[in-house]
Amino acid sequence: MIKKFMDNNFLLETETAKKLYHDYAKGMPIFDYHCHLSAKEISENKKYKNMTEIWLSGDHYKWRAMRSYGINEEFITGNKSDKEKFIMWAEVLSSAIGNPLYHWSHLELQRYFEIQEVLNFNNSEILWEKCNSLLEKEEFSVKELIKKSNVKCICTTDDPIDNLEYHKKIKEDKNFNTKVLPTFRPDRAVNIEKEEFLMYITEFEKVVGYNIDSYKKLQKALIERIDYFHEVGCRISDHGLDTAQYLEGTEYELNLILGKGLSKKSLNEKEIKIYKGQLINFLGKEYSKRKWTMQLHMGALRNNSKRMFELLGADTGFDSIGDLNCAQDLSKLLNSLDCTNELPKTILYSLNPKDNYVLATMIGNFQGGGIPSKIQFGSGWWFNDQRDGMELQLKTLGNLGILSKFVGMLTDSRSFLSFTRHEYFRRILCNLIGNWVENGEFPEDYEALEKIIKGICFDNAENYFGIEF
Amino acid sequence: MIKKFMDNNFLLETETAKKLYHDYAKGMPIFDYHCHLSAKEISENKKYKNMTEIWLSGDHYKWRAMRSYGINEEFITGNKSDKEKFIMWAEVLSSAIGNPLYHWSHLELQRYFEIQEVLNFNNSEILWEKCNSLLEKEEFSVKELIKKSNVKCICTTDDPIDNLEYHKKIKEDKNFNTKVLPTFRPDRAVNIEKEEFLMYITEFEKVVGYNIDSYKKLQKALIERIDYFHEVGCRISDHGLDTAQYLEGTEYELNLILGKGLSKKSLNEKEIKIYKGQLINFLGKEYSKRKWTMQLHMGALRNNSKRMFELLGADTGFDSIGDLNCAQDLSKLLNSLDCTNELPKTILYSLNPKDNYVLATMIGNFQGGGIPSKIQFGSGWWFNDQRDGMELQLKTLGNLGILSKFVGMLTDSRSFLSFTRHEYFRRILCNLIGNWVENGEFPEDYEALEKIIKGICFDNAENYFGIEF
Amino acid sequence: MIKKFMDNNFLLETETAKKLYHDYAKGMPIFDYHCHLSAKEISENKKYKNMTEIWLSGDHYKWRAMRSYGINEEFITGNKSDKEKFIMWAEVLSSAIGNPLYHWSHLELQRYFEIQEVLNFNNSEILWEKCNSLLEKEEFSVKELIKKSNVKCICTTDDPIDNLEYHKKIKEDKNFNTKVLPTFRPDRAVNIEKEEFLMYITEFEKVVGYNIDSYKKLQKALIERIDYFHEVGCRISDHGLDTAQYLEGTEYELNLILGKGLSKKSLNEKEIKIYKGQLINFLGKEYSKRKWTMQLHMGALRNNSKRMFELLGADTGFDSIGDLNCAQDLSKLLNSLDCTNELPKTILYSLNPKDNYVLATMIGNFQGGGIPSKIQFGSGWWFNDQRDGMELQLKTLGNLGILSKFVGMLTDSRSFLSFTRHEYFRRILCNLIGNWVENGEFPEDYEALEKIIKGICFDNAENYFGIEF
Repeated sequence: MIKKFMDNNFLLETETAKKLYHDYAKGMPIFDYHCHLSAKEISENKKYKNMTEIWLSGDHYKWRAMRSYGINEEFITGNKSDKEKFIMWAEVLSSAIGNPLYHWSHLELQRYFEIQEVLNFNNSEILWEKCNSLLEKEEFSVKELIKKSNVKCICTTDDPIDNLEYHKKIKEDKNFNTKVLPTFRPDRAVNIEKEEFLMYITEFEKVVGYNIDSYKKLQKALIERIDYFHEVGCRISDHGLDTAQYLEGTEYELNLILGKGLSKKSLNEKEIKIYKGQLINFLGKEYSKRKWTMQLHMGALRNNSKRMFELLGADTGFDSIGDLNCAQDLSKLLNSLDCTNELPKTILYSLNPKDNYVLATMIGNFQGGGIPSKIQFGSGWWFNDQRDGMELQLKTLGNLGILSKFVGMLTDSRSFLSFTRHEYFRRILCNLIGNWVENGEFPEDYEALEKIIKGICFDNAENYFGIEF
Repeated sequence: MIKKFMDNNFLLETETAKKLYHDYAKGMPIFDYHCHLSAKEISENKKYKNMTEIWLSGDHYKWRAMRSYGINEEFITGNKSDKEKFIMWAEVLSSAIGNPLYHWSHLELQRYFEIQEVLNFNNSEILWEKCNSLLEKEEFSVKELIKKSNVKCICTTDDPIDNLEYHKKIKEDKNFNTKVLPTFRPDRAVNIEKEEFLMYITEFEKVVGYNIDSYKKLQKALIERIDYFHEVGCRISDHGLDTAQYLEGTEYELNLILGKGLSKKSLNEKEIKIYKGQLINFLGKEYSKRKWTMQLHMGALRNNSKRMFELLGADTGFDSIGDLNCAQDLSKLLNSLDCTNELPKTILYSLNPKDNYVLATMIGNFQGGGIPSKIQFGSGWWFNDQRDGMELQLKTLGNLGILSKFVGMLTDSRSFLSFTRHEYFRRILCNLIGNWVENGEFPEDYEALEKIIKGICFDNAENYFGIEF
Repeated sequence: MIKKFMDNNFLLETETAKKLYHDYAKGMPIFDYHCHLSAKEISENKKYKNMTEIWLSGDHYKWRAMRSYGINEEFITGNKSDKEKFIMWAEVLSSAIGNPLYHWSHLELQRYFEIQEVLNFNNSEILWEKCNSLLEKEEFSVKELIKKSNVKCICTTDDPIDNLEYHKKIKEDKNFNTKVLPTFRPDRAVNIEKEEFLMYITEFEKVVGYNIDSYKKLQKALIERIDYFHEVGCRISDHGLDTAQYLEGTEYELNLILGKGLSKKSLNEKEIKIYKGQLINFLGKEYSKRKWTMQLHMGALRNNSKRMFELLGADTGFDSIGDLNCAQDLSKLLNSLDCTNELPKTILYSLNPKDNYVLATMIGNFQGGGIPSKIQFGSGWWFNDQRDGMELQLKTLGNLGILSKFVGMLTDSRSFLSFTRHEYFRRILCNLIGNWVENGEFPEDYEALEKIIKGICFDNAENYFGIEF
């Protein structure tokens, strides 16, 4: 019998899967430990004027799909009206068979807008009106959406020089109980080879109030910001790396390299590698001291179309997956911290699924310190954040590590409607484990299963990150 | 209940899959936009003297299987009689469980010879006689086989210096409605590092009637041939690349490099990279001007056994999959065309499935121009042209792009019996999409499904390649 | 209906799978052609004092799992009592959902200890007592465990300078019919860049009785040891390579490089590559002369945590998967032997599953000599030795080669309880092939199926390795 489209038991193929999801997973709160939500929008409890603003503006996943379908750019990032853009998106979505956007979008329509229909060109005008009038209601403000989604903690992504004013303001709102914490992401200080490096350091100098003219000063400045972030509640850092890199280097060399970077002289590959490797090593030690978690996001190949980059800037849908070899340098980088027992809790992500087995075995080399799965293999990231990608990550971690200690899902999103991705993940998780039980591969022991499911959905993250509620 | 071996519902595991295949996919014509069929054989409406000639001679897939089984070379490419070779093949085939040859061969026996039996050593003599007597019939001539297969268009693979006389002759046959068009494959002009380069350019000079002693002249000569191919109906080009390569280079450098190549001086890697990158960039622009499609076949590692290469030459079953990193250079190559808005429609294929995610995200960087999926991730190629490989390609494209705009299957074959590979692909496609519908992952909306299935089977290719019927 | 946990039909999802396993696979003897069992322990017919000694000591798979769970090292390799270690392992195991250790461990408890329960913290004390009292019985001596497991041949892994005294002694025991043969693994002579190389050659000199001060002498010494191994029954060699490497080199260069290695001068990458490539080429020819099989295990990245390496040494659970590109050099290495028709029977293994397609097509380039699948793609190795990894290897080989000629499973283990991994493999194999039959992809021809299943379980290995029983 054909299953109803995306019903209550969506993706739950067995009775065990249904039980695991409905009895254990569904009710768990959300710990969204990595996303790109705006603290400002939360603080200001933003409301959206229409579906295009909340759904399409800023969502480069949807933009890519529209371009792939053959839609003209004026309907995507251009001057067409919000309504025209929405209708075009409806047309594209109805053809996006096999794409996670198809499920994400309909989950969002179902959960937030109570729309059970399939969005397409024909009903797009009616749904445009219906959704927009809902968006006017108070329950569609950002804070209400977060509450409705049962989110206990949100970790945003922030630059070291951010003053975190909005995080502080959010904390002051005693009617809003979700923790909204910053994440320390010092990419702009790490990417010494980038055009904008000098400009960034100049900004950094203004924030700390002194010249950053030596590697020591850079370290001092970063420590000050780490301490400031810690004070505001930050317990997690994040690094976006084209690939892991590590080379030994002396302070003398680092000063020389930094000097070159600050005078816009070109750096060779070895210099960049020393600088990045040593700086991340230094930061890792600081994270470790403060019991922070370090995230490494590796393997993106960004801004491939220079033409569109010049038109629209970064993060607009022109990124893809790189394929550099990562095992050796990643091992060296982690070992450089482990050898002095200063490796922090670490989560490894690679955008290229060919690295899954490398990462899921790499984590096994550096476990310890009495922390359950201190080194984690992160959930399917970005292009892997779909059913096949998530199942592959879960099976890989199961085969090569201790899946039951996994810290689970994150949205990585810019949208306040994306919390349903946790639901999507949980359904996939429960279905996978349900299949194992039904097939006699794991005992029908509901006490054990409850602990595993609830752990991966929320409890493991709560224990792991050390953030108190 | 055990399903009957390769019956009417072969590979169709659900009722929805059966409906999709029998109602929508089955009746669609074939657009075989990439193959290695011989225009000469079509033009001459060749008939085959026996099953070994039509089935085994020239089929390096089967040769490899025979060698892997342990068969002596004399039964493969050697002096044994055609009958002995056929019997040996029957013995091998019956053991080839899990190999696409098992299904391909039996599909061909069923569809063209109406043999429902499983071929094996015991019945091989009887089937040898039966098939051979069928081959004598007029309906087993090449043109009749093509007609029977409902093929609307065949794009062969041709060298720029080919005079295309047979393509022209085929066009003249008013009783034969299948379009047979050449594909422009200038590998021998691109592979400057190869032993045969000088000899090839000498041949080229004879065709164009002047000396090719500068890069400008080479460009001129290639443009002339592109124009000639265009006139005969060609709209597609094809490149076989060990890997994508791209480096900037000046005309001065290109002249120097070409000069070296033409005087058999050895070239370093950088020079080869400049030459190949720039030449493909130049060709891409010419394709773009004429609204051609450019195919890039990347990642083969050819002629691994030098001993057998010296005995039998190229394309005799001694090729395998390479594993060079491709993302960065492929991005640069495509960007070099995109940045001036001269990137033609492009189809990317990699022989190494580790590149699937790289390719399926790379295409998303360069979509546009109002063409649905202008940049395509090609169907499972060569070693990936089997159930697992095709499903992986389809799911990957679904997850990362717009599957419903996929131009679909091609045979890549040298045999006139291989059109059943389209059937094989269609069954796999319908089964995959059928599973999604049955599992509630896509609505049971037959209007939408019909459009998707028919699109991928034929309509998308028709729209995409711009070849008029 | 939920299947009972790991019952008689564990992993057998169809009636056909059950038939294939119970009628054909189950009863076949075991040919364990690659493992790390101790000939000394077999010869001395060792008995184990408790479950920790037989199960946990020396099993770095279990150690990794314990560390990943968050267990303190003192319970793993440290000073805690054997009983405390066992109880801790029970706790970890019960959480190891999705990990092969979960199935391996319970299969071992079922088959050797007749324990059908699921091991966990609560019953760990009782089972500790129960198993320990069984271990006291004569039937739990090493030789009885081997007999009970229906093992016909065991190939251990041995250094060229090993005197093989225990292999000889085992042969003398006329009541013990299992062949226990050495495997020639000359890694320490190949790894010229390692700290221990000089020390090793000094040991080697003592064994052969003369100075190894030239490449010729090294060859002579190795040949002597190969001959000695051959005499004791060895027919298989094994190489652990970070990656395949090959470069041409003259005897003059090889003497120079060896001289450097023996005087602890540092070697550059090219020199190492020449030495390793040429030495393996030389050894391959010697193997070929004697009709030996050469195994190449490629792609490990070892001893990643230097801190733990200094504490515990090699093979203690700090290894992972490397990701070097291997296709080109592997092709050159194999071709260097094939071009003079001196390529021995060869089995290729890569630890990185991204190499599966490379390896499974590489083997097809060098088949021949009338030997069924002379070049083999080895079974899922180490981190791939689990359900998904084995299925992937089987499907890959099926798609790209002749699966029915596969030599099948090996334990690669240090434990005398690991023979159940053959059962695990056979169930997975029968399930896969059963699915193909049930789905109409292979005919319900039990004669053919029996031959295929029995072949892969035992008969192919027996024919392939040429070891007489």
